[in-house]
Amino acid sequence: MTHVIAADIGGTNIRLAVVDPQGQIIAESRLQGELSRHAETSQAAAEIHVIKTLAGAIKPFASQYDIHELGMGFPGFFHGRSGLLASSPNLPLLQNFALADRLSDTLDMRVSVENDALCAAIGEQKYGAGQGHANLLHITLGTGIGSGLILNNIPYSGEHGMAMEFGHLCIEHHEGRLCGCGNYGCVEAYASATALINRFTEICQCEIADAKSIFEQARQGHTCAAKITNEAGMYLGMAIAEAVKLLDVTTITVSGGLSGGWDILHPALKHELDDNLIPPLKGKVDVLRSRLDDNAGLLGAATIARDI
Amino acid sequence: MTHVIAADIGGTNIRLAVVDPQGQIIAESRLQGELSRHAETSQAAAEIHVIKTLAGAIKPFASQYDIHELGMGFPGFFHGRSGLLASSPNLPLLQNFALADRLSDTLDMRVSVENDALCAAIGEQKYGAGQGHANLLHITLGTGIGSGLILNNIPYSGEHGMAMEFGHLCIEHHEGRLCGCGNYGCVEAYASATALINRFTEICQCEIADAKSIFEQARQGHTCAAKITNEAGMYLGMAIAEAVKLLDVTTITVSGGLSGGWDILHPALKHELDDNLIPPLKGKVDVLRSRLDDNAGLLGAATIARDI
Repeated sequence: MTHVIAADIGGTNIRLAVVDPQGQIIAESRLQGELSRHAETSQAAAEIHVIKTLAGAIKPFASQYDIHELGMGFPGFFHGRSGLLASSPNLPLLQNFALADRLSDTLDMRVSVENDALCAAIGEQKYGAGQGHANLLHITLGTGIGSGLILNNIPYSGEHGMAMEFGHLCIEHHEGRLCGCGNYGCVEAYASATALINRFTEICQCEIADAKSIFEQARQGHTCAAKITNEAGMYLGMAIAEAVKLLDVTTITVSGGLSGGWDILHPALKHELDDNLIPPLKGKVDVLRSRLDDNAGLLGAATIARDI
Repeated sequence: MTHVIAADIGGTNIRLAVVDPQGQIIAESRLQGELSRHAETSQAAAEIHVIKTLAGAIKPFASQYDIHELGMGFPGFFHGRSGLLASSPNLPLLQNFALADRLSDTLDMRVSVENDALCAAIGEQKYGAGQGHANLLHITLGTGIGSGLILNNIPYSGEHGMAMEFGHLCIEHHEGRLCGCGNYGCVEAYASATALINRFTEICQCEIADAKSIFEQARQGHTCAAKITNEAGMYLGMAIAEAVKLLDVTTITVSGGLSGGWDILHPALKHELDDNLIPPLKGKVDVLRSRLDDNAGLLGAATIARDI
């Protein structure tokens, strides 16, 4: 086993790392690269834009370390483990795009690609708080809410690569908030960074820079910030209960920027979760904070680069 | 492949059948046998009661046909495919009870046991509307709501045999109805036979014999019956949407007594389902009525009898 390149493709930047066989990040690079901001109007042009942006970032990094294996987490739905992108909400022009193959040809590297949230689950199970658990539900609380599922040590992606749209579980059926997906009452509309900032602005009628500051305000006794962050935890607990009722998976890990508010989120989440579970599972579900900070996705990408 | 005995153990009766290798029911028997009504106070006594009741029903039937393989669907949570009953909500005294082994010793037959709702899913996939679908979510609408999941042709039972507690998905977070599980707002509190009868009695302030009569009243233009049955369909659609968001399974089959109200349930269900799905799955999910009437469970039991 050798070193591999791991890539985690986000909404506004591209993170790259050299990862050794023990899961240590040896070198890292973070680049601006907004894939969705482009003027192309055809699928062919959009494909070229995506490949150019990704290859432009990855090629110099990989060459510098002379590494020829790449694993990548990408925000989109994939057909199985083929690296064939079925679709991507942020890149609507791309349909059935052979992302891994095209990137492999361009970079002359072996390339494995998986959904970004599923990559984070794979990383957390391999190197983080999910170690030793054959079944794991991993939730990434960031700008949005992502989620990935491991069943019996196998990443689960569903029939269309669209499994674990946890962020769009409905936890408010009446007068729920509008979510980015077009539906109302999704947990993402209450417990993502975007949702916290929007709710703070609306309900507390103050401007705030980021979600981290809302947690800080809550800790300092700001009543409105405390209410919003507590509610985010409660809604997360309700949504996790729904997932557990279907999946009977009892280890849940949480990563992403908002996990910095664990001291506030976890007690609210845990209380609501136990309240909503079926009786024989009450008290049996562990919700653990990630041990990998925001590196779960990168380490999952490194894992799939090796697993081919 | 030979003929096998299939047993479907319900709340108030035991159904037995001889099933041929093509899934045809050759002979059938239905017996009264309420397992949960007994005066025992210890686990040992409860175990003896259950084995006596089951063996007393099955032995003469199996002897009559000289068959030595038994598959059984039983209402409880099992450890994997071992036939070891972890627990059963209706039989709280039983914990970690080697049901299959004990029954096998008593009957001198090869015995396979699985959760009853999962058996129905297995039967529907093997012989019914789920044929040819590697992934299937099957819902049984009866006195309560049961559900079983097949993923990649493998029955999925979760870490504790408690997966697919679909009936306890919460679809009313505010002022939801009390469910038998102790929580509020579960879909079972709106869309099971028990729920329909209770709601009809309460809301329409009329007595009614059974759920079937409520559907008949609805068809004849009874406004209140129409409202309740339509709402049952809507709530089912909402709950199915939640399951699909997590599982990305796009074939759902529905059996059980309430599927007799398909003409009313399905349009309401379908509308609400499509409304609540994430955009790329809207219109892509098929909800099909069982082709096996109330025999899905029996045919699933026959299938597991052969699969060992």
